[in-house]
Amino acid sequence: METAKYIERNIPDFELLTEEALQVIEENAEIVLEEIGVNFVNNPGALARWKEAGAEIEGERVRIPRGLARKLCATAPSRFTQVARNPAKNVEIGGRNLVLAPVYGPPFVHDAMGGRRYATLEDFRNFVKLGQMSRWLHHSGGTVCEPTDIPVNKRHLDMLHSHMTLSDKPFMGSVTEPSRAQDSVDMCGVLFGEAFVQQNTVMTSLININSPLTFDDVMMGALEVYAANNQACIISPFIVGGAMAPVSVAGTLTQVLAEVLAGVAYSQLVRPGAPVIFGAFVTSIDMNSGAPTFGTPEAAQITYGAGQLARRLGLPYRSAGSFNGSKLPDAQAAYETSNTLNNGLLAGVNFMLHSCGWLEGGLVASYEKFVMDADQLGVLHKMAAGVSVDESAQAMDALREVGPGGHYLGCAHTQAHFKTAFWRSELLDYKPFETWSEEGGRDTMQLASDRVRKLLDSYQKPEMDPATAEALAAFVAEKKAAVPDSFM
Amino acid sequence: METAKYIERNIPDFELLTEEALQVIEENAEIVLEEIGVNFVNNPGALARWKEAGAEIEGERVRIPRGLARKLCATAPSRFTQVARNPAKNVEIGGRNLVLAPVYGPPFVHDAMGGRRYATLEDFRNFVKLGQMSRWLHHSGGTVCEPTDIPVNKRHLDMLHSHMTLSDKPFMGSVTEPSRAQDSVDMCGVLFGEAFVQQNTVMTSLININSPLTFDDVMMGALEVYAANNQACIISPFIVGGAMAPVSVAGTLTQVLAEVLAGVAYSQLVRPGAPVIFGAFVTSIDMNSGAPTFGTPEAAQITYGAGQLARRLGLPYRSAGSFNGSKLPDAQAAYETSNTLNNGLLAGVNFMLHSCGWLEGGLVASYEKFVMDADQLGVLHKMAAGVSVDESAQAMDALREVGPGGHYLGCAHTQAHFKTAFWRSELLDYKPFETWSEEGGRDTMQLASDRVRKLLDSYQKPEMDPATAEALAAFVAEKKAAVPDSFM
Repeated sequence: METAKYIERNIPDFELLTEEALQVIEENAEIVLEEIGVNFVNNPGALARWKEAGAEIEGERVRIPRGLARKLCATAPSRFTQVARNPAKNVEIGGRNLVLAPVYGPPFVHDAMGGRRYATLEDFRNFVKLGQMSRWLHHSGGTVCEPTDIPVNKRHLDMLHSHMTLSDKPFMGSVTEPSRAQDSVDMCGVLFGEAFVQQNTVMTSLININSPLTFDDVMMGALEVYAANNQACIISPFIVGGAMAPVSVAGTLTQVLAEVLAGVAYSQLVRPGAPVIFGAFVTSIDMNSGAPTFGTPEAAQITYGAGQLARRLGLPYRSAGSFNGSKLPDAQAAYETSNTLNNGLLAGVNFMLHSCGWLEGGLVASYEKFVMDADQLGVLHKMAAGVSVDESAQAMDALREVGPGGHYLGCAHTQAHFKTAFWRSELLDYKPFETWSEEGGRDTMQLASDRVRKLLDSYQKPEMDPATAEALAAFVAEKKAAVPDSFM
Repeated sequence: METAKYIERNIPDFELLTEEALQVIEENAEIVLEEIGVNFVNNPGALARWKEAGAEIEGERVRIPRGLARKLCATAPSRFTQVARNPAKNVEIGGRNLVLAPVYGPPFVHDAMGGRRYATLEDFRNFVKLGQMSRWLHHSGGTVCEPTDIPVNKRHLDMLHSHMTLSDKPFMGSVTEPSRAQDSVDMCGVLFGEAFVQQNTVMTSLININSPLTFDDVMMGALEVYAANNQACIISPFIVGGAMAPVSVAGTLTQVLAEVLAGVAYSQLVRPGAPVIFGAFVTSIDMNSGAPTFGTPEAAQITYGAGQLARRLGLPYRSAGSFNGSKLPDAQAAYETSNTLNNGLLAGVNFMLHSCGWLEGGLVASYEKFVMDADQLGVLHKMAAGVSVDESAQAMDALREVGPGGHYLGCAHTQAHFKTAFWRSELLDYKPFETWSEEGGRDTMQLASDRVRKLLDSYQKPEMDPATAEALAAFVAEKKAAVPDSFM
């Protein structure tokens, strides 16, 4: 199946917050950075960089004078190209574009046949295959699920190897140890050539901020490796509203902006010009159960507002996804997901991680939901294309030809355009009730289950130069042999 | 359960089309009215009114000189109040408001226990009860399902009687015969007093245009009755794109605008100042199966565009709803519904018919989906409230109190606001996997099924003055006795 080009929006963004509200938040974020500050934990190098840049250091606390962080952010590019091994699948991140990547991080998988279980490398490989075959998915992602059967200290090698060989779309690197980030860079050197990697961005990796206002050494260590090697990072507050941020939208946006300003500024201290993305992972806590909730109006408001703040800062923006808290790919999962996908499109998101496959608050990668969401991503493509009013779209000939009381099914305009006029799901049911009923009365999960099987059965590995394939396999084997297994 | 006030938007509309595109469409709509014209079928009175107003009549074709229809629309109010028998539930239709009403028209019902079957009066009464108990539903609607066990020529009496006695929210009148519209007006005279009805709008009824460009005598006859009695009508093109309108968004918008201009203008010829709503029911045809499709990007684009056209015309706007083509209240139903509900909110819809309960392209009213959708309507309320940046919302005290590495669960700001900070579903599952699993691993349909039973079991009839109740029952009995049953 051919992969669609990343989305180039031909529609406006939804500007939820007023100019005045945005100014209040920007002012408050500067106060947070200057008066409260942020912690860089176990990271003397970072403290030294900050001190030299003019920040006030007290223990691990970094207080950043008004305007300094924003000024440092100015060297970050407003858009960048992430190169794929198939150059037709390069993506341009930033501007009016939207790049879609799959779910990231779940330790469990779920499918209709086998239920919920720990994820394995086989699952991981299956999700990469499904991603490769998804028309509306531009990016292969990163930890599409945790291959829990592989030692923790070696997983990243198998994951990268799967992305590199089973897909020809762009992918993400490891962030769980600085050394694994370096392995990711080195392995990209094998795939793309070392010099090429230094001159091109070939990975976009996820650096979470330990909200509130804390930058831990593992994530910062990975960021340092990637920035030094000109590889892109999403610098992303991880917000469960009410727990890691205030219960109000404006308060949360203030914290998100302060955190991103500090994180992006730090990336530019490591290497001015390093490509970064303004991230915002947002959910809120259910005050009755303590569970995170998804597809809620407050999360949408924060996503809209953070998009406005990112544009004012001139940075690419990452947010939204196929978020939901359901245990099954059912109506709850779809309501919450659809709320969030629509929100993400109109909020001006440039890179949407988790755009398909997310279930149960991110604990689960769902096979069925992966293909259900991936199908819905087609809606975003068509919506973003906007509305033409060229002569053909005006259809005045059709209106004249048909006239009052007629129908348009056979008119010349319809005949000329019906094949491309309407977006059409490749999954959902459009059949008459009787046909649907005779065919077993399948619900969406069952239709998706059939589609998963069909896709995996017909998967074809993208071609790769045999020498490169061999070198990649050798790199993985050598790295794995060098250290004992660890599941810690 | 207390009913929420209708939504008063504190957020902007999403302006999808450019000024230039809107001007092209407005210009083309005038050309359609002037050069192609519209048909008023079997309606010599309408032709006479149009002739007197300055239109050119040829057979049943009415060609409307440029600018005339728009000029006639100017006497229609930009907003109006529909009075409920419980004045706390009056709704203001127009402006920045959004009034939510349930599904309209399905001949079938579906529930998890009984499957799909013809709707009866008992079903009708159940849906009115569910509507009365739905916190986020402001309006009792009209034909929430077709009570197919009641003669066609007497159904409207039972339906109105159910709305008037089982609910105290505002409702819709009958449009299936002009005489039934008159019965609706007369029955409102019994409920509200005849003089009151002449001075207040107590019904908002649905007048479909027989697209393309055709106004049939039944619907226009009902419109004439309502307009003459100062009762509101939604004047609504019924568009299945590709069949009743061109396959392009701009072409469809042109036709929608031309039809609404002609219909609203005609209402003002009947009675200048009669309250009306700019309607747009939009779906498109699946060119493979011929089925109507829902939740698609083209329908969303038309809904956004028609909202812009309605605002430029200064009329309240009706569109969107819980549209979907699924046979079950499953993920497909929810994706398509959620796409459309979000679209409707941001498109500036003022009156959303079908906002809950729609299934299978409108053939089916679903018990479970009714409560599922009705719950999601809460998301729209909170989203529409917008984002505060007052001192409390800025939460600077909380940010200072918690600082880097802390958490917000116990801070003073959270304690003060957590009860109202986040919208919370009354239906969806927020439990840990283990609890959810122990409780039976129910999907959304099953959760909704339990909720339907619980709501119907705890329903309480709103109080009514016994003399009024007796007079309404007598009106219905007398009307029914006056003519033989007809199922035609």
